[in-house]
Amino acid sequence: MNGGGDHRVTARPPYYAVIFTSIRADGDDAGYAAASARMIELAGGMDGFLGVDSARDGIGITVSYWQDEASIVAWRRESEHAEAQRRGRGEWYAAFQLRVCRVEREYGYTAPARPLAE
Amino acid sequence: MNGGGDHRVTARPPYYAVIFTSIRADGDDAGYAAASARMIELAGGMDGFLGVDSARDGIGITVSYWQDEASIVAWRRESEHAEAQRRGRGEWYAAFQLRVCRVEREYGYTAPARPLAE
Repeated sequence: MNGGGDHRVTARPPYYAVIFTSIRADGDDAGYAAASARMIELAGGMDGFLGVDSARDGIGITVSYWQDEASIVAWRRESEHAEAQRRGRGEWYAAFQLRVCRVEREYGYTAPARPLAE
Repeated sequence: MNGGGDHRVTARPPYYAVIFTSIRADGDDAGYAAASARMIELAGGMDGFLGVDSARDGIGITVSYWQDEASIVAWRRESEHAEAQRRGRGEWYAAFQLRVCRVEREYGYTAPARPLAE
């Protein structure tokens, strides 16, 4: 999966985050990239989906944000996603960890606009 | 911060995760990299620190894992870290979000060893 995502979501805590860290197995970069993009698209249509952030740089880290735990369960069971999970275990990942978390509090920062150089 | 980290931690849920997502401001890559490496080193010596995963790929995502909320508060207040936070706002980040989460459940996967090709 390529880096990117929404960077910020607008839900107020509490909501949920799924932290998925992974080490890729060698091979099938194109198939993996296509499946990753499709999963982002598919998740975006699920009830309760709030956003996703993702980066890969040695380790891959994808954090998806959800309104509640029921939304996460529904996503895990979604049929096309279930098939991608099966291929992930069989082909794409050497290892992964998945953590389901309750977001307790959050804050953000945006730098003030800088004046244009003259 | 370069990608990497422990990838897996051994604590049993519940424990805590701090999800820090960021967009870098332009410039001072060397200073930023040095400070990031120093923060990882410093966090590793804090009570309650369990591990860290980090990747930057457009967006930066650093997830640090902690035994409890008190450990997170102590880390936020650590003096050298507080100075790095100040520089982060002033110089290094165009924007960031910080989320404090309670890890409710976790599971992992490691691919079975593959036989060597003959």
